[in-house]
Amino acid sequence: MTGSSAPSDSTKSPWHLAARCARMNPSVIREILKLTELPGVRSLAGGLPSAETFPVEAMREATAKVLAENPREALQYAASEGFAPLREWVSAKMTAAGIDAPADRVLITSGSQQGLDLIGKVMLDAGSTVAVETPTYLGALQAFNPNEPRFASVAGDNDGPLPDAVAALERGTRFMYVLPNFQNPTGRVIPDARRDEIVAAAQRAGVPLVEDNPYGDLWYDQAPPKPIASRWSEGTLYLGSFSKVLAPGLRLGYMICPKPLYPKLLQSKQAADLHTAGFNQRLVYEVIRNGFLDQHVPTIRDRYRTQRDAMATALKAHMPAGSEWQAPSGGMFFWVRMPAGCDALALLPKAVEAGVAYVPGSAFYADQPDARTARLSFVTLSPADIEDAVSRLGAVLKAHLATAVAA
Amino acid sequence: MTGSSAPSDSTKSPWHLAARCARMNPSVIREILKLTELPGVRSLAGGLPSAETFPVEAMREATAKVLAENPREALQYAASEGFAPLREWVSAKMTAAGIDAPADRVLITSGSQQGLDLIGKVMLDAGSTVAVETPTYLGALQAFNPNEPRFASVAGDNDGPLPDAVAALERGTRFMYVLPNFQNPTGRVIPDARRDEIVAAAQRAGVPLVEDNPYGDLWYDQAPPKPIASRWSEGTLYLGSFSKVLAPGLRLGYMICPKPLYPKLLQSKQAADLHTAGFNQRLVYEVIRNGFLDQHVPTIRDRYRTQRDAMATALKAHMPAGSEWQAPSGGMFFWVRMPAGCDALALLPKAVEAGVAYVPGSAFYADQPDARTARLSFVTLSPADIEDAVSRLGAVLKAHLATAVAA
Repeated sequence: MTGSSAPSDSTKSPWHLAARCARMNPSVIREILKLTELPGVRSLAGGLPSAETFPVEAMREATAKVLAENPREALQYAASEGFAPLREWVSAKMTAAGIDAPADRVLITSGSQQGLDLIGKVMLDAGSTVAVETPTYLGALQAFNPNEPRFASVAGDNDGPLPDAVAALERGTRFMYVLPNFQNPTGRVIPDARRDEIVAAAQRAGVPLVEDNPYGDLWYDQAPPKPIASRWSEGTLYLGSFSKVLAPGLRLGYMICPKPLYPKLLQSKQAADLHTAGFNQRLVYEVIRNGFLDQHVPTIRDRYRTQRDAMATALKAHMPAGSEWQAPSGGMFFWVRMPAGCDALALLPKAVEAGVAYVPGSAFYADQPDARTARLSFVTLSPADIEDAVSRLGAVLKAHLATAVAA
Repeated sequence: MTGSSAPSDSTKSPWHLAARCARMNPSVIREILKLTELPGVRSLAGGLPSAETFPVEAMREATAKVLAENPREALQYAASEGFAPLREWVSAKMTAAGIDAPADRVLITSGSQQGLDLIGKVMLDAGSTVAVETPTYLGALQAFNPNEPRFASVAGDNDGPLPDAVAALERGTRFMYVLPNFQNPTGRVIPDARRDEIVAAAQRAGVPLVEDNPYGDLWYDQAPPKPIASRWSEGTLYLGSFSKVLAPGLRLGYMICPKPLYPKLLQSKQAADLHTAGFNQRLVYEVIRNGFLDQHVPTIRDRYRTQRDAMATALKAHMPAGSEWQAPSGGMFFWVRMPAGCDALALLPKAVEAGVAYVPGSAFYADQPDARTARLSFVTLSPADIEDAVSRLGAVLKAHLATAVAA
């Protein structure tokens, strides 16, 4: 039963919750972050791409075209697998990236978040072990949680998971979840050689890989190395998304499924929501079919690169001694480790009071969090506002450290 | 592992399937129904509304308006709860229907199929009992299945579940799933008095109700009785959909959640796909906000009523003696029981050969199917084609019965 939110007659409530609900806890962070919507707070907390990058004019044209040419097909029930021309497009793109990705193993999903949900359903029993990075994407933990797995938190460094830690995974681990490019939350990219080492280690351990790549196209210095799935096709399930290169509000992602998994993932998709909105699939296909992304994505890169540089400069200027971070070469986030004596979660209310918000890093750990970490997005604020926000954050940390020393 | 679909090197495959996958079987019926897409086959098998009813012009206007006025908000990530004005609209509509439905307990879903998925996640443990009608909506069985429940198939008659059978449900049954209006597959509506009896019986048994109402607005003779949720608000979770009154390809539904369940359903929704496409929510809200459905839904009723009448006439004219059916007063389906000696699944290939397809009823039973039953949709074909299709079906059955007698 539900405890605090139950009404006074809760003893008579006929509803019973499944055991897995005990693992769905109201997020403390989510509650705090509601404060960041207050006026005057400069938020570095969002996981949102900049709405300025959304190709509204192209969407207008594509919508008009779909509604003029195929309105009834676009508005009707459709195949659970996804819109065939869009699956072909994904197949071509991923094949060009070196992945064995025939169209009949492409499954269109309602954002790549849904891909994670389906993967959990099809591969995790209660008590199964699933390996994740340290730290890892919060949404993946949330997606896998309903299946009541045990998380194995794989040790890593600035280059990603340590091959020895991967090789040491227990046999029977259902899969290891990896976000190789500009990871959410750390921003780090796994270098080419490390990818090979991780694949070799995973093969030795008999543990397949789930490769999540929402940020791969958002590189600002050089394109990331070849995907992991291109190195071990039959042992890697690959997830992609249109959320960061087009717009997240359409909820459109895809999976390249290993052959033995495809039928079950498809049935699981059908049971989950029948299919992803056909209107949205046709709309996106219409936008991208003639190479639009080749022109569009570089404009996003230019914008985000400027913002990334602004945050790098601001952090250097304002963060107190003892802070640590790596400037990311892509994606949307800086991962900052505050000086010893700082607890990012405990300091968040003070930061919000000072007009700046961030996400405490603790949410991104499957086990023991590093309380000093925080995730800072650089894509939602202008360079001037980033400078201002980071300056406020630096002042909060310095004031806290001064008090702590004085105490 | 996967068996037949695995490649020859399957012994080396690193992938392990969750135990629940054993319950996700490739549907024999789905395979057969692929045949119904052959040219020349008149299909009564679809569960699709008529695309002729989709308000394309209203969609065009609404799309243009959303992309002119709020393009960036519509294309951005959005709240997991749903678009606030749409939740308010649902709240007002459901409150008018007599349900306790404040906007803060409305959850927007990616079709009501997703609502069923979330309900299963939040309320079913492996081995939990969930009660369903006999027969019941196939998609609900598929949505609940991944949680590995035990199904209790509640006995019913032409007026729906029998109150005594509901009262006899075992304590601890997590909920009973009911589709009161023009049920898929049977087309029957639960009369007013029976609704009260079911509620009283469920209360005695301590079993809450999940009320699914995708077809309630599609009535052709008189509006259905008040919803079950209006009779037992705290013990009923209500599901609604825009698929049948607007268009299914937008994937938009909603739930009115009992208070103790709302936080967990919301977290489950967030983990499943973050949120339903904001673009679609704004689009639908724009279409319906000024009473559009009051004009539009009657035009759907007129169309479907004519088709319903055509099928009633055709069945009377062509079905062999010993066949049974009730003319439905709403929805999309006739439920036909073929004469003794007919097996609807076994006869389907012959029917397809003769140019007509239907869905064998066996798929809609949680336990022992009635092999003589079949679901016939009357909303996708014109009256003339319905007459032709039913005539072909009648001929197939008569030929089979003649052979069976001769043998």
